[in-house]
Amino acid sequence: MAGKERDTARTRRAVLDAAAAAVVAHGAGVSLDAIARAADVSKGGLLHHFGSRDALLLEVAEDQAELFRDAVAAAVDPADHAKGRLVRAYVSVTFAALDDGPAAHDYVVLAAALSAVPGVVEVMRLDKQRWDEAFAADGLDPDRVLLVVRAADGAAVAGLYEGGYDVEQLRRTRELLLALTREDGPLVGS
Amino acid sequence: MAGKERDTARTRRAVLDAAAAAVVAHGAGVSLDAIARAADVSKGGLLHHFGSRDALLLEVAEDQAELFRDAVAAAVDPADHAKGRLVRAYVSVTFAALDDGPAAHDYVVLAAALSAVPGVVEVMRLDKQRWDEAFAADGLDPDRVLLVVRAADGAAVAGLYEGGYDVEQLRRTRELLLALTREDGPLVGS
Repeated sequence: MAGKERDTARTRRAVLDAAAAAVVAHGAGVSLDAIARAADVSKGGLLHHFGSRDALLLEVAEDQAELFRDAVAAAVDPADHAKGRLVRAYVSVTFAALDDGPAAHDYVVLAAALSAVPGVVEVMRLDKQRWDEAFAADGLDPDRVLLVVRAADGAAVAGLYEGGYDVEQLRRTRELLLALTREDGPLVGS
Repeated sequence: MAGKERDTARTRRAVLDAAAAAVVAHGAGVSLDAIARAADVSKGGLLHHFGSRDALLLEVAEDQAELFRDAVAAAVDPADHAKGRLVRAYVSVTFAALDDGPAAHDYVVLAAALSAVPGVVEVMRLDKQRWDEAFAADGLDPDRVLLVVRAADGAAVAGLYEGGYDVEQLRRTRELLLALTREDGPLVGS
């Protein structure tokens, strides 16, 4: 990447991160001024690059979905050729984020706030569709995938209303979910 | 209940509901004035009954936990004497709330906002401990309970970042979780 492109990419990254943090702190009603201050750029520069406050927040939503998809893709073990490798990466990334503190909290609060921005619901639906397709291609029994993914999501969010995370229970949940991806077939009536 | 006590209970209920809605709309930084307006009572009356804004929000947190516990207790099928009856009621109440619209959304946003209020984290931890004890007494294999409860939690929150709920997937998840509570024993390595 040429120097100028690299600077542009770096500024874009800084603005998207600052905007996400500003929405978590102040809600979806956060002003463009507040985002500009947090990103240490001018309001004019923001408008030039993103067009409007809502267009910027829509890009935050797309960026969040992409960051998570990329993190899971990067976490797939290249030596793992068995069915469920994507689900295992999903579980690993979800639980790893919990070690870093209030990531899940911020993610949920951010999603709830961004939902009010025009176009964001469509971005989220498209992202869900991509996940559904990717999990279908991953090969495990669909009910097993649904159960493991939903339980990972639930474990990630539980700390929000349980007054923090129960580290030992998280470890147990993670091991159980990974073990469930290493078998296959129906979970009930067997 | 005497007339005066009934009025007091009714006012308390209206204030707690209005305060919860005001926190969802405006965040934990919501003013006592805004809560008083939403509840259609005087600020002086609020202070007289609850002591302070934070004391009121702490009571909102206790009330939310109690409402959910009571709803689950009421949903236990009196004809169901098998292990897992409490888990089945938990699943039923969690999914029934999703039919009513953005309940899970509000619950998570409310919990995230209330966490900042002094004493709320302790209330949440105590509530989690009560649930852990109640599930232990319910008799199913602990890993099975953990999996089902976390998957129900995850299904409830997924609509937040998936652009709404996939009704058919919710129905499938609910049936799967209920079926998982009707068997027992280890889920993996069998």
